[in-house]
Amino acid sequence: MAGSWRAAALAVAMVCLVASSCVLGFPEEDLVGRLPGQPVVGFRQFAGYVDVDVKAGRSLFYYFAEAQDHAVGRPLTLWLNGGPGCSSVGGGAFTELGPFYPRGDGRGLRLNKKSWNKVSNLLFVESPAGVGWSYSNTSSDYNTGDARTANDMYKFLLGWYKKFPEYRSSSLLLSGESYAGHYIPQLTDVLLTHNEKSKGFKFNIKGVAIGNPLLKLDRDVPATYEYFWSHGMISDEIFLAINKGCDFEDYTFGSPHNESKSCNDAIAEANSIVGQYVNNYDVILDVCYPSIVMQELRLRKYVTKISLGVDVCMSYERYFYFNLPEVQHALHANRTHLPYGWGMCSDVLNYTDKDGNINILPLLRRIVEHKIPLWIFSGDQDSVVPLLGSRTLVRELAHDMGLPVTVPYSTWFRKGQVGGWTTEYGNLLTFATVRGASHMVPFAQPDRALGLFRSFVLGQRLPNTTYPPIGD
Amino acid sequence: MAGSWRAAALAVAMVCLVASSCVLGFPEEDLVGRLPGQPVVGFRQFAGYVDVDVKAGRSLFYYFAEAQDHAVGRPLTLWLNGGPGCSSVGGGAFTELGPFYPRGDGRGLRLNKKSWNKVSNLLFVESPAGVGWSYSNTSSDYNTGDARTANDMYKFLLGWYKKFPEYRSSSLLLSGESYAGHYIPQLTDVLLTHNEKSKGFKFNIKGVAIGNPLLKLDRDVPATYEYFWSHGMISDEIFLAINKGCDFEDYTFGSPHNESKSCNDAIAEANSIVGQYVNNYDVILDVCYPSIVMQELRLRKYVTKISLGVDVCMSYERYFYFNLPEVQHALHANRTHLPYGWGMCSDVLNYTDKDGNINILPLLRRIVEHKIPLWIFSGDQDSVVPLLGSRTLVRELAHDMGLPVTVPYSTWFRKGQVGGWTTEYGNLLTFATVRGASHMVPFAQPDRALGLFRSFVLGQRLPNTTYPPIGD
Repeated sequence: MAGSWRAAALAVAMVCLVASSCVLGFPEEDLVGRLPGQPVVGFRQFAGYVDVDVKAGRSLFYYFAEAQDHAVGRPLTLWLNGGPGCSSVGGGAFTELGPFYPRGDGRGLRLNKKSWNKVSNLLFVESPAGVGWSYSNTSSDYNTGDARTANDMYKFLLGWYKKFPEYRSSSLLLSGESYAGHYIPQLTDVLLTHNEKSKGFKFNIKGVAIGNPLLKLDRDVPATYEYFWSHGMISDEIFLAINKGCDFEDYTFGSPHNESKSCNDAIAEANSIVGQYVNNYDVILDVCYPSIVMQELRLRKYVTKISLGVDVCMSYERYFYFNLPEVQHALHANRTHLPYGWGMCSDVLNYTDKDGNINILPLLRRIVEHKIPLWIFSGDQDSVVPLLGSRTLVRELAHDMGLPVTVPYSTWFRKGQVGGWTTEYGNLLTFATVRGASHMVPFAQPDRALGLFRSFVLGQRLPNTTYPPIGD
Repeated sequence: MAGSWRAAALAVAMVCLVASSCVLGFPEEDLVGRLPGQPVVGFRQFAGYVDVDVKAGRSLFYYFAEAQDHAVGRPLTLWLNGGPGCSSVGGGAFTELGPFYPRGDGRGLRLNKKSWNKVSNLLFVESPAGVGWSYSNTSSDYNTGDARTANDMYKFLLGWYKKFPEYRSSSLLLSGESYAGHYIPQLTDVLLTHNEKSKGFKFNIKGVAIGNPLLKLDRDVPATYEYFWSHGMISDEIFLAINKGCDFEDYTFGSPHNESKSCNDAIAEANSIVGQYVNNYDVILDVCYPSIVMQELRLRKYVTKISLGVDVCMSYERYFYFNLPEVQHALHANRTHLPYGWGMCSDVLNYTDKDGNINILPLLRRIVEHKIPLWIFSGDQDSVVPLLGSRTLVRELAHDMGLPVTVPYSTWFRKGQVGGWTTEYGNLLTFATVRGASHMVPFAQPDRALGLFRSFVLGQRLPNTTYPPIGD
C-alpha cells in the first residue's frame, strides 16, 4: 500500500518537471488553503483563472475539488450551470453537487455529505466571461453567444490541462443543467472535432450527462404549460387557450416570442395564475423571502429555512458569502477588482437570445454516434424545463437514430425507495427522472442525485430492484 | 365571562333532564376517560355505538372529539373515509385530522397540533356496518351498497343526536375523502329530503367539503393515467396506447372494467411501470416496508419513518394500537367480540362494485341549489383520484348550472407560502388544490389542511394574498 503511494508520488513529480508551476502536477498558486469558515476535509481544492484570449484579456475562473480519495485515479467531471449567464461555482459547486454548502449565517461553510466528489474530481467553470468572476478586459466580449462560449471553454480546458497535467488522460465526464443543455453538447461537439483532427492529445470523453436541459424549444416550451396544467397550477380554460392560441413551432427564445396576441395573452395569464410566490424550479418547495433574509444576514442571524429537507434560503447565504472580501481572496477570485459584486446570474453579460432557438438534438446524435454514453436526467418538480419535454425529445432522438429500447420505462431505486423512472435506448442513451427533485437536481434530492451520478460514473444502469420487497 | 359560562352550563343541564343518560347533554357511558398512552388534553372524547337496525342487529361505531374550546358553540363536522369499506376512525380520526396520531411504538398516542378540533367538533363514523368495529348480527347485511350506506348514516345521525342533544341545532358540516365523494353527497341528499319533509327537526347543514373525491368515472379514471404520464411515472408510448385503446365512457368501477383488450393491456402495463414501490396516494412520499415494521412493533421498537415531514409508517403503528385489547376497551369498541381483528379497510364487507359507476354530479348540483357551500379540495400528489379529474368535473358542474366564476383560478396562501390553487363559482362552489398533499390531505399537509378547513368553517374564501411581498 505505502509502496504504491510512493510510486504514484514519484510519477506525479516527474510530470511536474515539465510544468511551469505545480504541486505534484498541480498549480501551487491556485491551491486553496482553507476557505473562511470551512470544515476540515481530506481533499484539496484549487481555484483561479485560465486565460482564453490573452490579447482581449479574457479569462475564465474555475473551482476544482479533488475527489475525496484516489483523486488521480478518478474521472474528471466538468459541471456547467446554465442561464445563459449563471454561475457554475455559485450554483453547482456551492449549492448543488460540490463538497460544501454555505452556512446559515452566510459567513462559513458546511459539508455536503452527498457531494459528487465522493466518486469523481469536480471542475466548475464560470462560463462565458462576464459570469461570476470570469471577465474580459474588452467590454464588447460581453456581447456573446453559444459558439464563442463553447470555443472559450475548449481553450479553457486546454489551458486547465496545462495547469493539471495529471488529468490529461483521466476519463472526462461533461455535465451540467438547464441552459447547459446548450453549453455541454456544443462543447462536446468542439472537443470531438478536436479529437478527429488532433494527431496528439485527445479529450478522453467517457460520458455526457445533462439535467433538465434546454434542448429544443418546440417541445420544451409547451411542456412548461402542460406541467402547469397537470400540476394544478393553471386552469383547464387557460391551458385550452394556450393550446388553441399558440404555435410553438414558431416560438422564439427571445422576447417577444413571435406568437399571436391570443397566445401571448394566454401565456401572460398563465404566468399570473402561477404567481410570484411559487418556485417554478421546484413547484412544491417553499420560497425564501429575500427582503427579510438579506437583512437578517447583515445582522449576523442564521437564516436557514428548511422546506422538504432543503434550505430554501441557501442562495442568499451563498450570495452573502461570495461577496465577503476574505472569501474572494481565499478563492484567488476577482483578481481584476470588478466594478460590481458577485451575482448568481450575470448583470453585465449581453448573451444573444437567438441561440436559444438552436436545435441541440443533432449534437446529441453526434455524441451517441461516437458511442459516448449520454444521460438526460430530469428533476420531476421543475416546471421551467420539465421532464415532459425532455422525455419526448429523447424518445424522438432514439427513434430517429433507430436505437432500440434497451431498458423499458421503469422505476429505478435508491436506498429502497423509488428514485424516479428511467428508460434506455441502444445501450447508450438514458433518460431518467429524479423523484421529488427540482430543476437543480442535486440541490433538492442530494442523495438520489449522488446515486444517479455514481451509476453514470461507473458506466452502470440505474438499479432496477430493491430489497426487501414491499409486500408482507 | 364567568356569568356566561354559568348560563351555558345551566342550559346544558336543562337539556340533560330530558335525555335518558347524559353528562351535561352527553352520554356518560360513551365518555372516553383516557386512551392508553394518550397525552393529557383539555377537551372530551366519546366513543361507542348507535344502532341503526335493532332487528338485524346493525350498529355503527363512532368516535367524537369535542372542539378544543367552546365546543357547544362550534359546528359539528362529520368526517367519513372512503374505500368503500375503509375506517373513518382509523383514517380521519387517528392519522389525518383528529387530535391524536399513533406513537411510533404503536402503544400510545401523540398530539396532532393541526387537529381540526381547533375549530370544530369532530365526529367520525365507521360506515357502513362491517367497517372497523361497526357490525351487523345479520351477516347478509355485509352485502351492501351506496343507498343503504346513506340511509344507515341518516339513522345514525338521528340516533347520535339523541345521545348528544346539545348538537341538534349546531351547524352541521359534512366532509370526507375519496369514496366519501359518494357517501357524503348521497347522505346530504337524504338529509335534504328529510328536511323537505320534516315538520320538526331539520339538519342544520352549513357546508359540504370532500377531498380527492370519486365523483364520475369517465373523468376520474383517465385522470389517473394523465397524472401518471405528466408526473413521469409512465412513458409517452403507454400513455398514447391508453388514450388510443381506452373508452372511459364505458369504464366500469368493478373489474373487469368493460374495456377492450388493448386498453386492459395498456392499463396493466401502466400499473406495472408505476410499480409496487410507489405510494399512489402520494407519489413523492417514501413508502414504509410493512414486513420489517410489523416485526419491529412487536419487538417494542420505534418504527416512525419520516419522509417529507410525515411518518409514512403511521398506518402500521395505528394498526398495532387499534388491535390492543386495552385500546378497544377504552374506546368502548368491539362490544360483540368480532371474530376478526381491526383493519383499516374491511375484509368482511362485500360492497357492490356497481355503485362506483353512479354519477355524483346531480347530487352536488342539489347541494349547491340549496345554497349550501360546497368545497371540493384535492391534494396534488395523489394519482388515485387526482385533481385533474375533480377540477374538470367542478368546472363542468358550474358550467351546467350557469354559475359565474366568482374567484378566478389563482393561488391561495398559508403562512406566507402557496397553499395551492383555488377557484370559486357562484359564491358557493369552490375547487381548491392543496400543494404537496396526498390523497389523505391532512395526513401529508396538516397545516395547509387546517388552514383550508378553517376558511371553510368560517364561511370565508381562502386567503389570496400574503405578506411580505417576495420581491426584494
